[in-house]
Amino acid sequence: MEQYSVQLDGLLVALADPTRRAVLSRLGRGPATVSDLAEGFPMALPSFLKHVRTLERNGLIRTAKSGRVRTCELNRAGLAPLEGWLTEQRRIWEDRTDRLAQFATAPAPQEQE
Amino acid sequence: MEQYSVQLDGLLVALADPTRRAVLSRLGRGPATVSDLAEGFPMALPSFLKHVRTLERNGLIRTAKSGRVRTCELNRAGLAPLEGWLTEQRRIWEDRTDRLAQFATAPAPQEQE
Repeated sequence: MEQYSVQLDGLLVALADPTRRAVLSRLGRGPATVSDLAEGFPMALPSFLKHVRTLERNGLIRTAKSGRVRTCELNRAGLAPLEGWLTEQRRIWEDRTDRLAQFATAPAPQEQE
Repeated sequence: MEQYSVQLDGLLVALADPTRRAVLSRLGRGPATVSDLAEGFPMALPSFLKHVRTLERNGLIRTAKSGRVRTCELNRAGLAPLEGWLTEQRRIWEDRTDRLAQFATAPAPQEQE
């Protein structure tokens, strides 16, 4: 539970940046080399590489080096902890809605004689 | 688009903290006063209030004061920008999967005579 929570913290911080979200959207269309990816973003390569490393460290992408070329690929399963948390929240709301509905339709308690 | 992105940044930072996520789960079960909420968390009240304000500022909860009592309520719609972003990512992946399937089943190009 604690480890799951720490993992989710890192994942959410990794997503809380427009450049990193844009990289994920780009990689959703297919793998790309770091150089090709970097061309789409108005920043120096070292800054861009930091974003790539943050995404990789938090399990959102995988990278592999062949010679001098590093290729990035989306890891779709990386979003699973966040999707799991959202599903859990909806379950909590639905349980509450069910309880409220039960309360509204339950017969009024009988007075003691 | 830019405003949507800034909104999503703040929302994700607000969610990237286990205390704030726990407050959201608790409020999913129904509204609660700040004092009742605070009892469940091992921190001083001023620190807890900062978390409450972060959640409110990012549209995840609503608070209202009556006399000296502040009550908090979940704003379910607050998660919509995040759910919208996740839906958009899945759409991008599915488009790609469809394109790959089309490519795999398309007839081989005819050689020119």
